[in-house]
Amino acid sequence: MNDHYTPVYSHSSLNMKSSAIRDMMKLTGNPQMISFAGGLPGPEAFPLEELKDIIDRTIAEHGSSVFQYGTTEGYTPLRESICDLMYHIYGLSASPDNILVTSGSQQALYLLCKVLLNPGDAVITENPTFVGAISCFRSFMAEIHPLAIGNSGMDPVELDKKICELIIAGKKPRFIYTIPSIHNPTGITVDNSRRKAIYSVASKHDLMIVEDDPYGMIRYDNKHVVPFKNIDTEKRIVYLGSFSKTVSPGMRTGWLNAQEETVRRCTIAKQGEDTCSHTMSQFVIHEFIDTGSIYEQIERVKKIYRDKRDLMTDAIDRIIPSALYETPGGGLFLWLKFPENINTMTMHEKALKRNVAYVSGNSFYPGQGGENEMRLNFSFSSPSDIEEGIMRLGEVIEEESAKQ
Amino acid sequence: MNDHYTPVYSHSSLNMKSSAIRDMMKLTGNPQMISFAGGLPGPEAFPLEELKDIIDRTIAEHGSSVFQYGTTEGYTPLRESICDLMYHIYGLSASPDNILVTSGSQQALYLLCKVLLNPGDAVITENPTFVGAISCFRSFMAEIHPLAIGNSGMDPVELDKKICELIIAGKKPRFIYTIPSIHNPTGITVDNSRRKAIYSVASKHDLMIVEDDPYGMIRYDNKHVVPFKNIDTEKRIVYLGSFSKTVSPGMRTGWLNAQEETVRRCTIAKQGEDTCSHTMSQFVIHEFIDTGSIYEQIERVKKIYRDKRDLMTDAIDRIIPSALYETPGGGLFLWLKFPENINTMTMHEKALKRNVAYVSGNSFYPGQGGENEMRLNFSFSSPSDIEEGIMRLGEVIEEESAKQ
Repeated sequence: MNDHYTPVYSHSSLNMKSSAIRDMMKLTGNPQMISFAGGLPGPEAFPLEELKDIIDRTIAEHGSSVFQYGTTEGYTPLRESICDLMYHIYGLSASPDNILVTSGSQQALYLLCKVLLNPGDAVITENPTFVGAISCFRSFMAEIHPLAIGNSGMDPVELDKKICELIIAGKKPRFIYTIPSIHNPTGITVDNSRRKAIYSVASKHDLMIVEDDPYGMIRYDNKHVVPFKNIDTEKRIVYLGSFSKTVSPGMRTGWLNAQEETVRRCTIAKQGEDTCSHTMSQFVIHEFIDTGSIYEQIERVKKIYRDKRDLMTDAIDRIIPSALYETPGGGLFLWLKFPENINTMTMHEKALKRNVAYVSGNSFYPGQGGENEMRLNFSFSSPSDIEEGIMRLGEVIEEESAKQ
Repeated sequence: MNDHYTPVYSHSSLNMKSSAIRDMMKLTGNPQMISFAGGLPGPEAFPLEELKDIIDRTIAEHGSSVFQYGTTEGYTPLRESICDLMYHIYGLSASPDNILVTSGSQQALYLLCKVLLNPGDAVITENPTFVGAISCFRSFMAEIHPLAIGNSGMDPVELDKKICELIIAGKKPRFIYTIPSIHNPTGITVDNSRRKAIYSVASKHDLMIVEDDPYGMIRYDNKHVVPFKNIDTEKRIVYLGSFSKTVSPGMRTGWLNAQEETVRRCTIAKQGEDTCSHTMSQFVIHEFIDTGSIYEQIERVKKIYRDKRDLMTDAIDRIIPSALYETPGGGLFLWLKFPENINTMTMHEKALKRNVAYVSGNSFYPGQGGENEMRLNFSFSSPSDIEEGIMRLGEVIEEESAKQ
């Protein structure tokens, strides 16, 4: 017998893998490390002074309520101002009853999976896709069916074919998961005609679409792109929103916009999961929207990240000309493709030894793929670290190429 | 065909019921309503000024880090100060590697269930038990096997018998869930010899014990009671702690203290669920412990709640003498038993009409039971509302008794 108790873990736990990105968060503690790995906003992008003022004002005005439990649905004035924000920026109408405030949009996706997925259920994703979504689906023992996206998103004909195959196999998918605006990791945006075609396929098979949109507001290519949900005449799109990239990720505030019954069920799931979201964050973000400050903040963030994107692409063009990429129209990431002889996964250890971190492409593929791809974050590092980090990465790539 | 898309929900969602308590949170918005229903701390109990000062200081000192993502495990200095706190108050030793910071202790329980429970798994609980735990277990499709507790906790002989029965039926329980110190809802505390006997039974069958302890620090009967985990020589107890009742529930900060492998698995589950806990809350609570302020705060809270408990028991003795109760040695609740002709569930609507709310006893029983019991919260209401609310409740009880 063991000297102490050994728990037996659930099938779900045995099916989960630690996220490479989250594990690498720990690296950011090493001051020598230049990390292009995480999805962290730039420290200079937080509206520090303004948040501090709003916090002080909120405590002075609302007193103890700021530290009390809130309702599970979320602070009603925030649910209202989320509707205002989405209407103001995108012309998207919703009622507060369609909004559930969550602890970041990761929780919105998680709760939705909790109320939709049974073990073994099929979901369709883009290939590659957000690594946090892969973790989430795996934790529900879902079967992930990824569809190639190229530079324009899922091919509607391929999507239809895949759904038909799954239906014939008795595995009608529970939903299509998509990041249609500034996709993570590739940065692509699905255009309107493609969205309509995808919507028609979903409609034909009566499927839900889950639109994850953490980056849509951080678009700096001067195109006006609205959410996929704007064309949702049949109420089949669940929209997941986040304040992590526009205000602060540490405030853990996101939301879900869905049919009332779906909101109700996700609310019950949230009761058993974490009772309610952070109270002060909800007061503060409500105020930040209500005063209009969020609109200036979004413009400020866009400028900061556009400049950083340009710094990083300039450095890559000079230092690593073998790296191919599409210039992203917004967001926090660059998606690089290398010649076939570069394996970003096996190369990663060497990069860490040189104190530069990235996420290898493979992490974003639910199955095989991405061996010669990588995701670089440009929002977090300082301009000088971007230059220095790309230099280090260039050395690693050069060494790796010479080896062959 | 429907005019819009109708989702198909998961077995898990269909198995969940909304918590009566959470639903009644909404009632606290009605200014006429005196609610003894929730588990809300008293508004006067929050250390408002001090929290405000620490927040200002934290932002000044740590700047943007306060608004950034944190690691999933939690802010390391907080994990250390949680260990210090538990050692200082209880003599309980732990390493920060045993601690996972969670979004309230509800999430700690949830994550633990996520890594332990498969659908249909059996868990043993006290009867009655915490309604949030019932919700959580139901959401994992667990079979709940409640054991009567009387005034001293689960009977070790009955516990052993129940476990044997379950093993024979091929349903070895995954764990025993207990609130051994100031039990919710009954207020009882399991004494040391009973704990040892329960531990022996768990040891004999090699079972995990989950100790939920949100109220242990709010004990004002001058007894020194340490956590069940203090006798955990075999590392089979997972301890769930909370700052909701000592500092602030709106700050959504709790923790789990377990074996490293269990912490690691819960951390991976948390990655897919909500990425990380609220950053500023973790900085602030760390500071609140580190400066020693938490010890004064705990003493302050105890005095406030002891006074309110005395107010409520005095009012009940005068106004509703038919209500029986054991005076709780701490915590936020009173557990009342009425004559058999009183049905607290059917009576509830009448009480709401008179603008007084409680939780009917039945909510705390995973199966049948509690029809003539109710839980009253005394921490939230003002002294005058406690008196007035008990008056209203007395009228409802009188009317109900006369009916028969």
